[in-house]
Amino acid sequence: MSPEQQHRESQLVERVVASFDDTPDPRLRELMQALTRHLHAFVREVRLTEEEWQRAIEFLTAVGHLTDDRRQEFILLSDVLGASMQTVTVNNEAYGNATEATVFGPFFVDGSPEIELGGDLMAGASGQPCWVEGRVTDTHGNPVPHARIEVWGADEDGFYDVQYGDDRVAGRGHLHTDADGNYRFWGITPTPYPIPHDGPVGRLLAATGRSPMRASHLHFLVRAEGLRTLVTHIFVRGDELLDRDSVFGVRDSLVMDFAPQPAGAVTPDGRDLGDRAWSRVRFDIVLAPAAAGHEEV
Amino acid sequence: MSPEQQHRESQLVERVVASFDDTPDPRLRELMQALTRHLHAFVREVRLTEEEWQRAIEFLTAVGHLTDDRRQEFILLSDVLGASMQTVTVNNEAYGNATEATVFGPFFVDGSPEIELGGDLMAGASGQPCWVEGRVTDTHGNPVPHARIEVWGADEDGFYDVQYGDDRVAGRGHLHTDADGNYRFWGITPTPYPIPHDGPVGRLLAATGRSPMRASHLHFLVRAEGLRTLVTHIFVRGDELLDRDSVFGVRDSLVMDFAPQPAGAVTPDGRDLGDRAWSRVRFDIVLAPAAAGHEEV
Repeated sequence: MSPEQQHRESQLVERVVASFDDTPDPRLRELMQALTRHLHAFVREVRLTEEEWQRAIEFLTAVGHLTDDRRQEFILLSDVLGASMQTVTVNNEAYGNATEATVFGPFFVDGSPEIELGGDLMAGASGQPCWVEGRVTDTHGNPVPHARIEVWGADEDGFYDVQYGDDRVAGRGHLHTDADGNYRFWGITPTPYPIPHDGPVGRLLAATGRSPMRASHLHFLVRAEGLRTLVTHIFVRGDELLDRDSVFGVRDSLVMDFAPQPAGAVTPDGRDLGDRAWSRVRFDIVLAPAAAGHEEV
Repeated sequence: MSPEQQHRESQLVERVVASFDDTPDPRLRELMQALTRHLHAFVREVRLTEEEWQRAIEFLTAVGHLTDDRRQEFILLSDVLGASMQTVTVNNEAYGNATEATVFGPFFVDGSPEIELGGDLMAGASGQPCWVEGRVTDTHGNPVPHARIEVWGADEDGFYDVQYGDDRVAGRGHLHTDADGNYRFWGITPTPYPIPHDGPVGRLLAATGRSPMRASHLHFLVRAEGLRTLVTHIFVRGDELLDRDSVFGVRDSLVMDFAPQPAGAVTPDGRDLGDRAWSRVRFDIVLAPAAAGHEEV
């Protein structure tokens, strides 16, 4: 590239950056100036053609037109580009042996039912029962009593209760750890499901040879006084989708052994599951100090 | 930042980049992988908070919802971030003394009326008449006969004909250079106007202390056999908006002397303008070879 061309391109970047110099809010100024630098670096590096620019505009327009109160295609786009997961990663910095965070996802609902320790949150959702147990501790190994654990998961057909649109509440609930930080409940053995892929984001995945499937997972949101709120999933060891989760939520440390149990195997709480097979998993949760920094959800 | 945190963030980038490895179209693969790297570099550099991410999603949603067949808020967004101008710059590389390109803008219309050399394309548009003349040459100084010059501009109220929605055709037209490459016509003396700023992009400009105004300009689209198509504007020397054009279209080499002429001053073609003042400008146009690379518009 000629020095003159180099000069024209870099001078333009500096002019756009300078246009934000008078932004009253210093953080907004920082964000817009950094966005400008990275956006222009992308355009210059790939030598974006005007036709490609036009197609990008059309793509974003389609994403915008599909988005409404029930469907958020921009969040899906952020998810499949890993931007959602990177934001989570940046806001939940590694701290000792604290359990890693992952994406929040769109299916959390406030006001889930409270269940007793050892209770069942399936509430009629389809799927194989799963006994989940573990202990919540801080990074020094001290148990965290009365931590609030919120759990939600998709049913065997790959749907969360809210997706049925009939006000059912199933596959979600919250409970509290006991005085020793222990918890246990019956949930649903996770199965894989696709993110919505009938829109522009789905077409992008298809055009790039990517699958819309999410690796099987169960959502957790854990809160306790003075400790960093944890939003995470647990994943199923052996799931073939672990290395190609469509939203990049998998962390090695979050992959757990879901031990399959044949029908008739004695359950931990003596519950009679009749002729149903079930599974069990242990998930010990380590919470960082609140001062380690996090975003409230 | 701890080495573990650094590792988590960079490993995530690599996983997202690798997810595009199987993209069948190599150019799409290149674009998505570069986009991923730059997007993640931005999130990591600014340590984007989850609340800021949420606000960005809401902003893009508002941009999408305002966009329709008549209003393209994503193009406006690209314009005010200088991305449109950078794309133009990348696709019209500096070549000798070839005239610089600038943004195309949304107000070009196919099928403008042809006017004779020295004709008037104002066609009743409000504003001060402007005598525009010049010569089209290649970069060796050879005249380019029969080059097609398309011109369009806003009227004195800051509107292009198409913005009135009443099918009027005014302030636009095309003509051809003569055998010596010369051209001349009566157009409108350019005046400043704002880009549409009643939407989210306007709110962004307000929040960052920027003006929505465009510097006064007249649009040119010049085509000739074997030469690179030129999309450009000319700007008015002395316009106080030159250094803060809202879409960054100004290039120093495109700023021209629009010489004001009092009412009654003799016109170049003897036309009687009565009691109206007018202006005149000379714009010599140099076209690069087609092989210098360009995008057709």
